[in-house]
Amino acid sequence: MTVTFDISVSLDGYIAGPDQGAEHPLGRGGEQLHEWVVRLASWRESHGLEGGETDTPSDAIMREAATGAGAVIMGRNMFSPTRGPWEGDWRGWWGDEPPFHVPVYVLTHHAREPLEMAGGTTFHFVTDGPEAALEAARSAAGEQRVSIGGGAQTVQQYLRLGAVDEFQLHVVPVFLGGGERLFVDMPELAIERVRVVDTPQVTHMKYRVVR
Amino acid sequence: MTVTFDISVSLDGYIAGPDQGAEHPLGRGGEQLHEWVVRLASWRESHGLEGGETDTPSDAIMREAATGAGAVIMGRNMFSPTRGPWEGDWRGWWGDEPPFHVPVYVLTHHAREPLEMAGGTTFHFVTDGPEAALEAARSAAGEQRVSIGGGAQTVQQYLRLGAVDEFQLHVVPVFLGGGERLFVDMPELAIERVRVVDTPQVTHMKYRVVR
Repeated sequence: MTVTFDISVSLDGYIAGPDQGAEHPLGRGGEQLHEWVVRLASWRESHGLEGGETDTPSDAIMREAATGAGAVIMGRNMFSPTRGPWEGDWRGWWGDEPPFHVPVYVLTHHAREPLEMAGGTTFHFVTDGPEAALEAARSAAGEQRVSIGGGAQTVQQYLRLGAVDEFQLHVVPVFLGGGERLFVDMPELAIERVRVVDTPQVTHMKYRVVR
Repeated sequence: MTVTFDISVSLDGYIAGPDQGAEHPLGRGGEQLHEWVVRLASWRESHGLEGGETDTPSDAIMREAATGAGAVIMGRNMFSPTRGPWEGDWRGWWGDEPPFHVPVYVLTHHAREPLEMAGGTTFHFVTDGPEAALEAARSAAGEQRVSIGGGAQTVQQYLRLGAVDEFQLHVVPVFLGGGERLFVDMPELAIERVRVVDTPQVTHMKYRVVR
């Protein structure tokens, strides 16, 4: 029943580079934040692909992060490059079979019917705020975790609500110089380090919120 | 002849809390960033004190950071809580015998005579910019390192000038929620991780700038 998030961040604190949009879903330079993960066997497996690296501690860490969540919450901006009322038939960045395989609650100001995708992912569009989305996600997740997928504003909302139990930063040694900052106007939260695992490509830093 | 900096930073990216000034030299909550260091034998030794912890890897890391610098550069705001033309006889936050024991170049817009302190520290006030300060510091340091002491704006200036060779962040698991952000408008610098050493109180993350 815990609420967690896992997110890649540059050393200067961004989870996406400047000029995010349809042309640059991760902003300029943002793809550098994900180079470490797309090579991993665990990441490829969760995306229906074979092969990949297993000889790094990052593989087990990613496997742990990618499994055990019974529901996911994400912001509208993570789901779609468009803003405002829904037009067309945008179904997310992830193709016909998204890698979530559980119900995904998308925070939006604009109502839309649920989107059932292949492989167990259904996108639900929640218009009555982050607390309502959390309640629905908890209910869907049962005994499993609720994972906050992102982006930064969504992570910040749940940290401010005091709803996050554990989180992991995947710190990539690069300066993006601008973009979407992960931590803005944080509350005064007491946290303690759970574990830090270091590799040349990325440092995995896991924390627990102290209550 | 390398140029380095070593700085404690909160998980949300601040090197000092909100409302920095004479009453709160480190900003509200900022003292939490330094609790790990003031307990160490190496820190106490560099401040002329006895005792302290030696049974943590942080002690050797701090000893390394505190030695081998032949000159230090710091911003006016790190030296003094006042702004504008010099008034009175402010001699820094560090008492009669500051812990630097080498020439310290203070970046300021306002000329002032050098201040010779006990223990080998002399504060030089440099009014012709960061490059001039770096040249003077390099010359004074000889074969030894030049250490950028802080604060954030000074660190940013030297990163933007491409003058920094190596740096170490001491990441403390706390959210300050505001204050002086370390990395703002960074250049697109390629960096690589040198070493990460983890303890429950602080994670030491060392990087090298790739040229």
